[in-house]
Amino acid sequence: MKKKFQVVGIGNAMVDILSHVPEDFLRANGVEKGIMQLIDMQRAADLYGRMGPAREVSGGSAANTIAGIAALGGRTAYVGKVKDDQLGAIFAHDLRAQGAIYETPLAPAGPGAETGRCMVLVTPDGERSLNTYLGWSEFLGPDDVDPAMMASAEWLYLEGYRFDGPDSKAAFAKAIKACKGAGGRVSLTLSDPFCIERHRDDFHEMIRDHVDLLFCNMQEMQAMYPAANLDASLKLAAREVEIVVCTASENGAYVMNGGGREHAHAVPTDIVDATGAGDLFASGFLYGLTAGFDMLTCARMGCVAAAEVISHIGARPEADLMELYRDHGLI
Amino acid sequence: MKKKFQVVGIGNAMVDILSHVPEDFLRANGVEKGIMQLIDMQRAADLYGRMGPAREVSGGSAANTIAGIAALGGRTAYVGKVKDDQLGAIFAHDLRAQGAIYETPLAPAGPGAETGRCMVLVTPDGERSLNTYLGWSEFLGPDDVDPAMMASAEWLYLEGYRFDGPDSKAAFAKAIKACKGAGGRVSLTLSDPFCIERHRDDFHEMIRDHVDLLFCNMQEMQAMYPAANLDASLKLAAREVEIVVCTASENGAYVMNGGGREHAHAVPTDIVDATGAGDLFASGFLYGLTAGFDMLTCARMGCVAAAEVISHIGARPEADLMELYRDHGLI
Repeated sequence: MKKKFQVVGIGNAMVDILSHVPEDFLRANGVEKGIMQLIDMQRAADLYGRMGPAREVSGGSAANTIAGIAALGGRTAYVGKVKDDQLGAIFAHDLRAQGAIYETPLAPAGPGAETGRCMVLVTPDGERSLNTYLGWSEFLGPDDVDPAMMASAEWLYLEGYRFDGPDSKAAFAKAIKACKGAGGRVSLTLSDPFCIERHRDDFHEMIRDHVDLLFCNMQEMQAMYPAANLDASLKLAAREVEIVVCTASENGAYVMNGGGREHAHAVPTDIVDATGAGDLFASGFLYGLTAGFDMLTCARMGCVAAAEVISHIGARPEADLMELYRDHGLI
Repeated sequence: MKKKFQVVGIGNAMVDILSHVPEDFLRANGVEKGIMQLIDMQRAADLYGRMGPAREVSGGSAANTIAGIAALGGRTAYVGKVKDDQLGAIFAHDLRAQGAIYETPLAPAGPGAETGRCMVLVTPDGERSLNTYLGWSEFLGPDDVDPAMMASAEWLYLEGYRFDGPDSKAAFAKAIKACKGAGGRVSLTLSDPFCIERHRDDFHEMIRDHVDLLFCNMQEMQAMYPAANLDASLKLAAREVEIVVCTASENGAYVMNGGGREHAHAVPTDIVDATGAGDLFASGFLYGLTAGFDMLTCARMGCVAAAEVISHIGARPEADLMELYRDHGLI
């Protein structure tokens, strides 16, 4: 029986604040290049005060993935916590307007934490350095998870970043139980090598016990399954997870499944802003998987979606992804 | 003596909410194409609920002009009213980060009107249709105008849109008096043909009595100085105003000054989003004027800046305008 949702995502709900900066801005302001750093409200205000004019686009890793699947016509829902403020309204609008169900109640307006935001500093090489003020998204907990929604999901999609919140791990556990209890399956994205270092044991336990599909990039793979080379890491991961998908930037993506290994080539493109590459890869892959395509086609769908999102600023798709799939002969 | 500011702008402070829509979205939602419509908060919420995912970029016509001059290294200030909310903070940040002085005190947070916003619906032809909820910017009044700042301006730049607020006309009068009393000069942009219809007499009186430099496009010229053709309208205007500048889309721009007439060709470009074309034309022209260039060069600087801003989404410059001026042999 077809379930109500093909994919339900859970993650950090936030709005991206995107700005182009010269390379030396990162050094001068203590920003580590290419990774995600958690910052508090004061640091967020300081950094914002020093960065140039920006633009605001809804973001959040799993939310980007869900938006991508929704843009492809997939049936999706998303759970992430924002506040009842203007940025929260923007986040909710953009997800709903893309066709995703976004049912998480807004936290009431008031003093204290605001809707989360991520200052995305894009250097001339297209690389992005993320500075995340989690705000209200930090408080995502079990009460925010509706078991009925989770039971209606063919696939859960969990964002590794949320391992930074203890209540969120409990929320993940509740969601997994409800989803698996109703015959659904669980995917996880590792999100960030430093996040893995912080929560290695928790990650490992969840992967081994519950995860059916693991998304990661090469740095995350090496952090989670250290080995002499990518091949060896992939094999370690494939012993524990049914489907392992590792993206490899300009080398495309590798899929391990049922003893077989597939490789999809990257789609050549000019990188304007790398934000969301992994998120949109997951959109394409999960869309393909829930629509019944083979592993190689799923990976190619991921690569096409990733190429689209890095060809412009912002981490949500702008072109018609389905049309791109037709152009690439995938459908 | 060099004054502190080359240009001080006064106008509607707002954040643009930009979204691509198909042509039939405008018809289905009663949006008039290519013009600015004022809407209330309820209509703004309705329209926002129906439009697709969007992105947010600081806007406001005169604020875009000031941002453009600041991006060129000009000494600028801006007066426009926002609220102490998240959109207000975004607006203030983006202007200051561009190098403009933005000293208007934020209105205190609280119930009622919020920071103004403009839903910019961009159709596939690149044309934009503006739906403006004025919010707090409507309450711009004489108390917001600091005479000392106005006296420190070589040029005032007034936004015609603000004629929709009676207190704002009083604010304009106060600003003009302080500026002219200290030997400064006054420029005005007509903003919109419908705005002219609503306030024809007030516009005319201000132009005749106070304006030294008038910016408009062809529709606004025809509305303000109706005549058989553009030539005749330009002549009517030139009888009343020392410098008359009329932009003409793909036909570039015309300047009437001291009995002479100049024409600058448009800079060919692919139109992605026409928002801000007139605003950035004014940036280039005013920058040239205050830097001592001749009328034709000023107009060409306007055309180059306009071409830059319509080549991407959003009404603030993204490329280095000064570098473009070098490329075009203007400096």
